[in-house]
Amino acid sequence: MFLQHFTGTMDNWDPALTNALAKNHHVVLFNNKGVSTSGGKTPESVSEMAKDAVDFITALGYGQVDLLGFSLGGFIAQDIAVNNPSLVRKIVLAGTGPIGSEGITKLESVINEGYKDGPENALINLFFTKSESGVNAGKAFMKRLQLRTTGRDTPASNETIGAQAKAIITFGYQKDDDHKQLLAIKQPVLIVNGTSDLIVPSINSYVLSQYIPDSKLIIWSDAGHGALFQYHEDFVREVDLFLGQAKNK
Amino acid sequence: MFLQHFTGTMDNWDPALTNALAKNHHVVLFNNKGVSTSGGKTPESVSEMAKDAVDFITALGYGQVDLLGFSLGGFIAQDIAVNNPSLVRKIVLAGTGPIGSEGITKLESVINEGYKDGPENALINLFFTKSESGVNAGKAFMKRLQLRTTGRDTPASNETIGAQAKAIITFGYQKDDDHKQLLAIKQPVLIVNGTSDLIVPSINSYVLSQYIPDSKLIIWSDAGHGALFQYHEDFVREVDLFLGQAKNK
Repeated sequence: MFLQHFTGTMDNWDPALTNALAKNHHVVLFNNKGVSTSGGKTPESVSEMAKDAVDFITALGYGQVDLLGFSLGGFIAQDIAVNNPSLVRKIVLAGTGPIGSEGITKLESVINEGYKDGPENALINLFFTKSESGVNAGKAFMKRLQLRTTGRDTPASNETIGAQAKAIITFGYQKDDDHKQLLAIKQPVLIVNGTSDLIVPSINSYVLSQYIPDSKLIIWSDAGHGALFQYHEDFVREVDLFLGQAKNK
Repeated sequence: MFLQHFTGTMDNWDPALTNALAKNHHVVLFNNKGVSTSGGKTPESVSEMAKDAVDFITALGYGQVDLLGFSLGGFIAQDIAVNNPSLVRKIVLAGTGPIGSEGITKLESVINEGYKDGPENALINLFFTKSESGVNAGKAFMKRLQLRTTGRDTPASNETIGAQAKAIITFGYQKDDDHKQLLAIKQPVLIVNGTSDLIVPSINSYVLSQYIPDSKLIIWSDAGHGALFQYHEDFVREVDLFLGQAKNK
């Protein structure tokens, strides 16, 4: 069950990643409430988004799923893991962090900086490093996102974007100094990020690994928030191994 | 080429690790100058130990090797990588950190604490966590270290231990605020540790990943300095993949 990032729709998932994982797992992508093609109003808190995701998962009839949460999706995954523990078998957290994550309250200025040279470069700027291999990985990622040509998702509305930004910034201002939420995650967790995440600074991934009781942390060099897309081959290999290559269909 | 930890001899390498790696690679264990069965006097600095290791490698006739440096061995590996770059193809750094590593100047009090309930428990205390699985991993490790019964190495002498301690503590007091040494490492590096390293605190592994240009960091939960022994199966899998499973014989 893939939980998507700020502003992202189903068409923001990299097919290099989803198609490769779909070889061994039943992959479910969805737009959470109010996002793109999904009806309803996007809530302004992570915990409400988590409830919406739980409603979706249970409406599909699943008793237990694996979660892959990227960025905002990782905040949601943590909430589901703790508040609906029996629903979650294993969790992959990418480019994300705990309640009170360092740096995420600066979301708006980081995003504005990323959009400085036009929306077509925003994801490259925000998800990848400025090195030659970082920029090339970003361009390749953007090409892969365009491979699907029919029935594409509409972009997230301004209302959704505003609500999600509020949820993220609120999550950043929340306090959990004893890391009670991380300590309460009983599922095995694979944590991944790049060394240079601009949106959820990489140190937050280290903090996740320090307090989630059962985890493996991987951080790739010369990569940012989109490290899972840049290192998609190694990422898929690690996820396959982590999930036990189970066919959950 | 395995570079050993403080006080360690060839018989401190876990056969679960060396034997598994030897399936795909030519593994060389050695006691550096003055350590255990090796002649000469153990120097009091990391850079001199690095020179001794380079002498050994070149005396064996190797033009290029992969280095696996654990703890003090990781300090030495960084020095060799930077000062003899053509000699080094790839590097694995386990339970180690950069020049000025946080916490390593406290070596003596950490070691004394580890020896509190007798020398037979010291490595379990110092390399593993206090959880049930940590202690069990420590006991299993200690058993594996005893598997070789003939021609075992003599323990490191007090003179060697004193010289190595001085080298480690000096390395901890050295300054490299701009991380020039890490930035100068041009080889691919695999960095591994546990979340709870008492000897070279785990944050140092994160710092390595932030500045070594080409790296992959792995941190396993509920593990300490000896994470590579506790997670030997995953470690060997990662190292094999990292080294390209090349037969270098």
